[in-house]
This record gives sequence, structure tokens and C-alpha cells, in this order.
Amino acid sequence: MNTFGTLFKISIFGESHGKWVGITIDGCPAGIALQQSDFTADIERRKAGAAGTTPRTEADDPILASGVFNGHTTGAPITIVFENTNTRSADYEALRATPRPGHADFVLDKKFNGFNDYRGGGHSSGRLTVALVAAGVVAKKVLGEIEVNATLVEAGGNTNIEAAIDEAIEKQDSIGGIVACTVINLPVGLGEPFFDSVESLISHAVFSVPAIKGIEFGAGFAAVKMTGSRHNDAIIAESGKTGTNNAGGINGGITNGNDLYFRVAVKPTSSTPKEQMTWNNREAAVAPFQVKGRHDLCIALRVPVVIEAVTAIVLADLLLRNKF
Amino acid sequence: MNTFGTLFKISIFGESHGKWVGITIDGCPAGIALQQSDFTADIERRKAGAAGTTPRTEADDPILASGVFNGHTTGAPITIVFENTNTRSADYEALRATPRPGHADFVLDKKFNGFNDYRGGGHSSGRLTVALVAAGVVAKKVLGEIEVNATLVEAGGNTNIEAAIDEAIEKQDSIGGIVACTVINLPVGLGEPFFDSVESLISHAVFSVPAIKGIEFGAGFAAVKMTGSRHNDAIIAESGKTGTNNAGGINGGITNGNDLYFRVAVKPTSSTPKEQMTWNNREAAVAPFQVKGRHDLCIALRVPVVIEAVTAIVLADLLLRNKF
Amino acid sequence: MNTFGTLFKISIFGESHGKWVGITIDGCPAGIALQQSDFTADIERRKAGAAGTTPRTEADDPILASGVFNGHTTGAPITIVFENTNTRSADYEALRATPRPGHADFVLDKKFNGFNDYRGGGHSSGRLTVALVAAGVVAKKVLGEIEVNATLVEAGGNTNIEAAIDEAIEKQDSIGGIVACTVINLPVGLGEPFFDSVESLISHAVFSVPAIKGIEFGAGFAAVKMTGSRHNDAIIAESGKTGTNNAGGINGGITNGNDLYFRVAVKPTSSTPKEQMTWNNREAAVAPFQVKGRHDLCIALRVPVVIEAVTAIVLADLLLRNKF
Amino acid sequence: MNTFGTLFKISIFGESHGKWVGITIDGCPAGIALQQSDFTADIERRKAGAAGTTPRTEADDPILASGVFNGHTTGAPITIVFENTNTRSADYEALRATPRPGHADFVLDKKFNGFNDYRGGGHSSGRLTVALVAAGVVAKKVLGEIEVNATLVEAGGNTNIEAAIDEAIEKQDSIGGIVACTVINLPVGLGEPFFDSVESLISHAVFSVPAIKGIEFGAGFAAVKMTGSRHNDAIIAESGKTGTNNAGGINGGITNGNDLYFRVAVKPTSSTPKEQMTWNNREAAVAPFQVKGRHDLCIALRVPVVIEAVTAIVLADLLLRNKF
Repeated sequence: MNTFGTLFKISIFGESHGKWVGITIDGCPAGIALQQSDFTADIERRKAGAAGTTPRTEADDPILASGVFNGHTTGAPITIVFENTNTRSADYEALRATPRPGHADFVLDKKFNGFNDYRGGGHSSGRLTVALVAAGVVAKKVLGEIEVNATLVEAGGNTNIEAAIDEAIEKQDSIGGIVACTVINLPVGLGEPFFDSVESLISHAVFSVPAIKGIEFGAGFAAVKMTGSRHNDAIIAESGKTGTNNAGGINGGITNGNDLYFRVAVKPTSSTPKEQMTWNNREAAVAPFQVKGRHDLCIALRVPVVIEAVTAIVLADLLLRNKF
Repeated sequence: MNTFGTLFKISIFGESHGKWVGITIDGCPAGIALQQSDFTADIERRKAGAAGTTPRTEADDPILASGVFNGHTTGAPITIVFENTNTRSADYEALRATPRPGHADFVLDKKFNGFNDYRGGGHSSGRLTVALVAAGVVAKKVLGEIEVNATLVEAGGNTNIEAAIDEAIEKQDSIGGIVACTVINLPVGLGEPFFDSVESLISHAVFSVPAIKGIEFGAGFAAVKMTGSRHNDAIIAESGKTGTNNAGGINGGITNGNDLYFRVAVKPTSSTPKEQMTWNNREAAVAPFQVKGRHDLCIALRVPVVIEAVTAIVLADLLLRNKF
Repeated sequence: MNTFGTLFKISIFGESHGKWVGITIDGCPAGIALQQSDFTADIERRKAGAAGTTPRTEADDPILASGVFNGHTTGAPITIVFENTNTRSADYEALRATPRPGHADFVLDKKFNGFNDYRGGGHSSGRLTVALVAAGVVAKKVLGEIEVNATLVEAGGNTNIEAAIDEAIEKQDSIGGIVACTVINLPVGLGEPFFDSVESLISHAVFSVPAIKGIEFGAGFAAVKMTGSRHNDAIIAESGKTGTNNAGGINGGITNGNDLYFRVAVKPTSSTPKEQMTWNNREAAVAPFQVKGRHDLCIALRVPVVIEAVTAIVLADLLLRNKF
Repeated sequence: MNTFGTLFKISIFGESHGKWVGITIDGCPAGIALQQSDFTADIERRKAGAAGTTPRTEADDPILASGVFNGHTTGAPITIVFENTNTRSADYEALRATPRPGHADFVLDKKFNGFNDYRGGGHSSGRLTVALVAAGVVAKKVLGEIEVNATLVEAGGNTNIEAAIDEAIEKQDSIGGIVACTVINLPVGLGEPFFDSVESLISHAVFSVPAIKGIEFGAGFAAVKMTGSRHNDAIIAESGKTGTNNAGGINGGITNGNDLYFRVAVKPTSSTPKEQMTWNNREAAVAPFQVKGRHDLCIALRVPVVIEAVTAIVLADLLLRNKF
């Protein structure tokens, strides 16, 4: 389903080339100051425009359609909508015969018996992440002193992001990246022992973001090469402060008061300018194929603020559930 | 919460040193043949006993307490219970002053104001995975021809598992591992575009398993070093069959009919025989600490069948939701 | 929360005097023909205009903002929005000091610490039922041959509705009514033994509709005066057809293939033109009070189509959950 | 499904003639004193034994199988189990050909393709209400000063319960009744404007109880004969205290600080000793039928404590959700 959360619940809707994309946030406490300008910074961070990002630009002015009154949240559901203005649906008409490799075209067509809105990925488009970012802005306000910070730490296997982008432009082939996320000022005790472990909920939300293919908490995959005595984070104060942070701030699924830390793998943008081979339904054969339309060479550049958003959404939910 | 799933819903309960551990499965279709012996193989795979695993052994005979009648599921909730017989609670009494590093002792004590059952990790113990395995047995029956297969592919950074265990025993320090999971015979179309993507749901379930710290689908973290033209899986047949499987069988959160493939990182067992330094509440200082009790040197050895179980649970749920 | 349903899930948003009211439907199958004109009949039935209904009229043209493409549902979330055009917020400013008796003014002010949008009841307004009606139109399409039919059978204690309205207009005091709902062509087997009994889900949805204070299935409250031998519906055919229908088509929470039948009590409109006494915060005393604004003398006139809508929503959900 | 609640979540399991009936409570706060003797009073109130109740008696000693340690709740799921000892399954074997009128035999057989445990109603039996009562005992502890009180106010249409029972015994035909429930000391603000209105949640829970066919809040069905000026409860103090309580303590779905009041209709016990006509599958015709087994002539006698339990469960959930 397209709904997520328990007490801070979001429902996402819209299509890449439809009228709007939007999100409804149900359960946000009343009395939080909220206005259109609060969204500007995060929406700008997500926007296209830098080298390696798509030339499609949208105004992306959020319409606060409900749940806000006199500059504050009211306790009623908050719906935030973004108009789609800069769409070129014609780009996609020709492609129906050839499901784009790496994209959801093929699976959506099968799952929805051909009724899906195929233009620009439809409902499955990365365009919808603007709605996640908007919900993230609201969630961050719920978090108060808790701060979520995500950055792109690697692109195309290179920690020098700029050089990696230049190389991708030169090669005209897309690249992926790694986004690292740190959360500070967390209380001890968020999360539940089993199915609502902090790792469970964050990974659930993170894998909703298009192009994410891996996540690791703390030492993550590197932990498998450590011994227990090295991996264990010694507690060095009554507050629970640890000397190392191999656990990424989580023990037994519950925040331990240290920084929450995780990294996510962003695959290379599926829409690469390079010619590819794939199935052509008209020819009933594998045939050469080239993506048209406007796309990011490194979608990972735009992912950090989305990861921040979904992380803030999860933590806002857990914070509201807790009986502090 | 300790409940997971939409149409195939599980609720887990019990403590390591309590009367029982168990699980209730709500939503399993009626008419599936089910008897006690169906559980034997998977429960044996999870059991302690091999080199590197804990000497604590349990009979682990499942009690089918409800939802089964005349050898078949009835459509009513299925409750499966395991008695805890081999508990030595005295082992834990002395440790209360010293929250074990890497364990949830500290966070549980804070979260539950000291009321948690601290014996052997209580409700957060790996002991509860026997209940997950039992639910997995039922889920696998719902899956029919879909087969889930997980194996330990690396321990302590070594693909020769036996050698890695020997080294751990020699060093008397615990080690981690990597479990790879493959699912075959999946239909196209399981999963939802946003929050119920297959990756979202599987990762949610997998991170409920104690000691898991990372997950990657298909090429996963290695994808970030690939270009798009290399990472994209060319579709080579009308069925959706792809030449490579870097996507791990999932596009846009939805199964594409190829094998589902993911890998998980299992941290080294927190209870290592090696002496460690950690906070001692009685001394109000960092002090040396050594775990007693009976523990696995490489808990990863016992994890594959648990990963299979939670994967089967997620897929059974998605299969029941689908309108095939 | 403002979300309801399992596989056919609705999320409602908006305020009486805000920009929009709307609803998102998540889980509607793809391929259902749907266009704006499909909504006209039900929206007209809900509309004000008849004797005894409010002079406030809205165009109420549904905007199909997402989930519909080429005249069919796509399988993605369907968002339907209605603009609020005919609002007179000034009517409400003066009333803040006096929470209107029978309304939610007092409880909303307390629950949301004064941050709620108090204009015209805000999010709690009956205005939002237009969104429920719209979701009902979609749900009815999912139901296929199953038909839901609700009518006002009694107003002000009188089965002659017209006479009752005339009397209310003459007395200038609002009245209530009873709505009866019948569903035909139901299959045997919808609903679950415990918490998702058909009665549980329908009553849950029905009591979301403002002004509803009672519900009874089949013989309902009259059943308490019957003996078991009279109340029991004899099964008279292999299909499950019964001679009487005191159970209202439900046994043990599950549809039995006979007509589903229930009645709901609609209280008199809280906004009555008659002078009333109530608490006045400015005077810190009980004081006379008279409602201004535009209101229905018999809101029950507009309720039947809303009851149909929520009933259809519940049944669509149950139908999708079933494995027919 | 057989799970209910958001933060205080219950999962029910078991069958009338199976090994156990039980319930798991997920989300109960840690640190609440809880022991076996706490359950005695409410379990006794539910028990058979009085005139007009079934001769089947069970010890009904609750087994606190998890979530309780050192006499207090731990914050982990609480599972409470009751053994079924006094079962006579043979009573039911002969009846399979004749689905009992008023019972769920026919619908369960169809819904579960004949795989349901048909003995004594199986999972749909009133026997499972002992588990609801147990969860209610825990919920009441969460409620603190809030008190829930339900009583049988009418049986067989007679306010003299004793006389009504005597008449039923004499006539050898079962009768129904009305249970009234009052909750005192509620705070203002529990419940949500739309789908989680207090009426929605309580009615959802109440209709999970077998034999309930109607519910009305405050004046309920009598409200439809009142004018608005009479039905509206004048607020007479700053606290929200009202002079009358026609709303039953709920405005706009939210508690208003006055007593919560509702009434439920309990149908006559379906198993009446009187001969009835119903479908006989063997004869493929309508034929005379007489219930054997042990049954209550007036199940309503045992219902009040169950209504209290489910009401307490709903209110505990709402209380935990609230951010007081």
C-alpha cells in the first residue's frame, strides 16, 4: 500500500505526468508553526539543476491544502500538493513497445494489466520524492532537537563527487553512489524489540525511495570481518555513551542514545544515455534501445534530502509512540 | 509492535527464560495440510549443537495450540508454542550491574524502567527466532512452488566456513557472517510501488532478526561502482527474463519474475568469551567484563533458516494480497 | 487516525472552510472505468437544496487528481478533491467564546489546544462527507453486482418524511431520522470471526459519519424481546437462503448470502435555529445562545448516500481480501 | 483479522474444543502490577453457573505465559492462555449435516471450505470471550482512575431480570437482553474526528462479541424523536460538564469529559432447547431440528463483563495514543 506509519502516518499519491503529486500526513500534533517557506531549503536540495541532474525543472511550490491554519498545524491531516507543470508526455508514447531496462515499466504493465499511467514512470516515478521531502520537513519539526543529516559520500565508487560526475558526463553513462545518514540528539529507547526495530522501520522507509538497493547500520557489512570483542561498543558512561559506534546507535532494535548512523547504496540511474540492448515487443526480439527524455546521470546527488525525509518520518512516528 | 503483516499476520511473544516462546499466525488460508513433523527439518537447521554454537539445547517440539484440525489449517489463527526447558536463570542474576556490550540490556532497562525480563535477553533473545522459524514453515506451505533458500556464504570474512569457525574457537572470540538468500519461481507483480516495495517489506522483516546489521538486493553496494549501462538488466524474453540479475529480481519495488536475491550481514555474536571493558554500575566506572552463560561463537551459522522464514512470511503475505 | 481499510484504504483530509476537502483511495484495482460524470448522481443526492437543508450550495465537481488515466483506474492511489468555494468564515468568528452545544467545538479546542480550524467545524464538518461519497462511488464499482441501497425511513419520529420536515420548519427546530440500508447479491463468507466481523467494520465506518448515534443489524434492538426460536432464521435451501432475516444477513460476523440489512439513528442537527442555553467563556456563565450560519434542519435527509458510501467502502475491502 | 488496536493491540486465538483459548496483548506499558488473582473477579462474572446459564464449567485459571516478570508487566507482549478441559466433542459430530440456525456453522463451512473446526463453534465460539475478559483486566489497569461499568438492564424485554429468566426456563426457549455500559472519569479529548471516533472504535470492538446486534450511544435511537434544542446537551461549566447527556459523553467522535454511556442489544441465545425447522443436508430438505449440547438460555447474563473488557481495551488504546 501507499500508506506508512502508525501515529505519524503518510499517504502518497500522484504521477510523474499527472495533475499533481502530493502527500497526506495524518497524526501530526497540533500547534507546530508551519508555512510555505519552511519547505524551500529542502525542496531546493532535491531539485534538479546541478551538473549530472535532469534539465526538467519544476517550480515545486508546495500547496498546503489542509491541516494548517493561522500558520500552525491544527491536528487534522496535512495535505501538501505539488503541481506538475513541466511534463513532456510525448517523450514516452513511443517507448511503450520497449520496457526500459532497470525501470518498472515491465512489472507495472504486468501488475496493472496495462492500465498503469506509463508516462515518465507514472506513480512509480522519482518525481514523487518531492512529496516525501515535504513530509520530511514536517517530521523534522516534530523531532525538535533531534537532527537528521544525510550526505552523498561516494559517487561512481569515488569519494571525489565532482570528479565522478565529470567522468559520467564525459562517458555519457549514469553512475550510482552512497549516501550516509547521521542522526544526533536521540533519546534512549526508541524502537521495539521485534518487528518495529529502528532498523526495520528505517529500512522499510528507505527502500520506498526509488533506486535504493542496500542499507547498512553502523559497521554494517564490515562487521562480518570483525570479532565480537572488537565489534562490541564498550559502554563508557552511565548515560550509555559508547567508545565506538559499530552498532550505529542501535542495540536490539532500540536507540541507545549514541548517534544513529547508516549508509545506503543508490544504484546508477536506470535512464542512461548509453545505448542498451533489451526486449522489443514489436519486433519480438532483443533490440538496441536508447532512452530519450530528460534524466539525471547521477540520481544519487538528489537522494540525501529524501533519505533525511524518510528517516525523520520514521523517527517522528517512534517519538510520538513513546511515553516519555 | 510485535505484530507484522497485512493478510498473513504474525504476532510473536515469549521470553528466553519464560514459560514459552510462541507465535500466532492470523490469515493463513484454510485447508493446508499441517502437522508437527512438518516443522522438524527447519527447527533442526536452527538448532544449536554444531561447533561454534551454544551448548544450550532445547527439545523444540512445536505445540500446535490452535488453528489446526484434522491435520489441516482451519482458517482460524494458528498459534504455535515452544516450551523453554533448558534455562539457567542464575547465570544472569549477577550481570544486572553490568549491561553487556553489544546486547540490548542497557536499552531495555531504560525503555522499560527496569521492569523488563532481563534473563537471557528476555523477549529480545535470539531464542524467539524458533517461533519465526515455525511461522516460516507455515508460510512456505502457502508459497507453493515458490522456493526460498538461504545459506551462510561467508563467516569471519572467510568463504571457508569451517576454517573460520575453527579459528574463532581457537581465538575464543566470536565472528559474524554473510547469509545469501535466493527465491525462485516467483510470479511477476508482487509488491507495491511505494511503502510496500518488496525490498521494504523484506528488509523490515529481516531486521527483526537479532544480529542483522545490513541488507543488499541484487548487486547491492557493488552497484554503486557500476555504470547504468552495465547495471541495468537487459530483458531478453517476453516473459521478462533478464540476462543479468543486478536488480535482484525487483524493479520499482515489484518482483520481475527473475530470482529474488539478497544478502544480509550478521554481526559477530555479542556474547564473546573474550574479556571486554564496559560500564559497571556498581563501581560507577568502566571495568573489565566477561560474559558467562552459554552462547554461539558464530550465531550466523543458525541464521539462514530464520532468514528463509521471514522471507517466506513476507512473500506469503504479498501472494495473498495479490489478485492473481 | 483518518485512514480506514486494509486492502481498499481511504485517507480523508480537508476542512469545511479550507481550500479543499478530499480523499485518497489506496488499493483500488486497475482497469475500472472511471470518469467525472460517474460521481454526479451520488453527489447530487448528498447536496443541499431541498426543504430542510442548508442554503449553502457548492458546485461539488470532483477533481480526479491521481490514479485515473485514459478513463480507467491505474492501480495507483486515487485522489479526489473538491474545492470549497461557498464559505462565509465571518459567521464563525464571533462564536469562539461559546462552544456550540451538540457540536465538537469544545472537544476540538481542548484536544488540539486551540489550534484547530474552528471555522464551520473545520476538519470535523459534515462537509467532508462529500469525500466519503466520492470514495463510495469508486467502491460501488468494485462491488460489481452487489448493490447497496440506503433510504431515510423515518424523520422526527414520523414515517411521513415530508410532514416531519414541514413541522420542523414551522417549529424552527431541527429533527433527526432513521436511515435503513440494504445490500443485495452478497456472496456467503465476507467478514471475519472476530475483530473484522461485518458488523464491526460497518459500524466502525458508519460511526465516522457525523450525527450517527446508533446502529442495529437485522432485528437489532427488537431482537431482545424475541425468543431464540423466533429470532433464529431457519435455513430453507442449500444455498443458505433463510425464511426470515432477523440476523440481517450476518451470522457469526460473516455474510450468509441473504440481504445485509441495518438501520442507523441520525440525531437532530446540532445547529438548530432555536435559542439554547450553554456556557459562555467570556461571561464565565451559562447564557442564551443562538446558532447563526446556514444549516440543515434535518441532516438525516442527506445521510443515506453517505451511509451507502461507507458501506460500499467496507464491502469493497472485504471483497478484495477474500480469496474467491 | 483477529487482531485489534493500534498501541494496545490484542490478538485472539483458540477454539471452543481445542487445547487452549488465549490472547496476546502487545503494547501494554511496563511496570503494571499483575498477577493471576487479578483476573478472578472478572472471570467469575463471566462464568456459567447461574440459572439460565450453561452447565459447562471450566476452571478458567489464566496462565500468564509471557510479558509478566516479578509480578509486573515487562513491556513485552503479554500472552494469557486458558485450557479447555470440559469439552464433549461427541455432542457435535451428529450435527454436521444440519447447520444450526442462528449459528455460524453454515457460513464457516462455506468460508473455510469445510476445514473449520466445527466443534462447539470452533474459533467463533463464545468460549473465546474468556480471553477478551482477561485482556480487559489488563486494560482496566492501564485506565487507572477511569472506571468501566456494564450491567444487564433488561432480559427478554423485561427489566426484572430474574422473572425473565424464570419465564425462559419455564418456556424452554432462549431470550436476549440489553446491556448498558457507563465509563466515568474520562478526560476530554480521547478519539479522533473521523475513522477513529470513540463510537467507531467501541462499536467495532463490541460487535466482535458474539450475539451483539445493536449499539446506541447516549440517547441513541430515541434521539431521532427529539428536536435539536432538546437533544443538545447544554454545557454548564468551563470543564465541559453538561446538564444532560444525550450525546453519551461524545461529541464529534471525541470524549467530552462527561460519562460515556452506551447500550447494546444481545440477541437470544441461538442454541434454544425448542424444536426448530432448518435445512438438513442429508435429507436435502427442511426438517425439524433440536439443539443438543449445553447452552445458556440467556447468554446476555454473561455479556456485561465482556462489554466492559472490550470497552476498556479500546479506551486503553486511545489513552496510550494521546499525548497528555
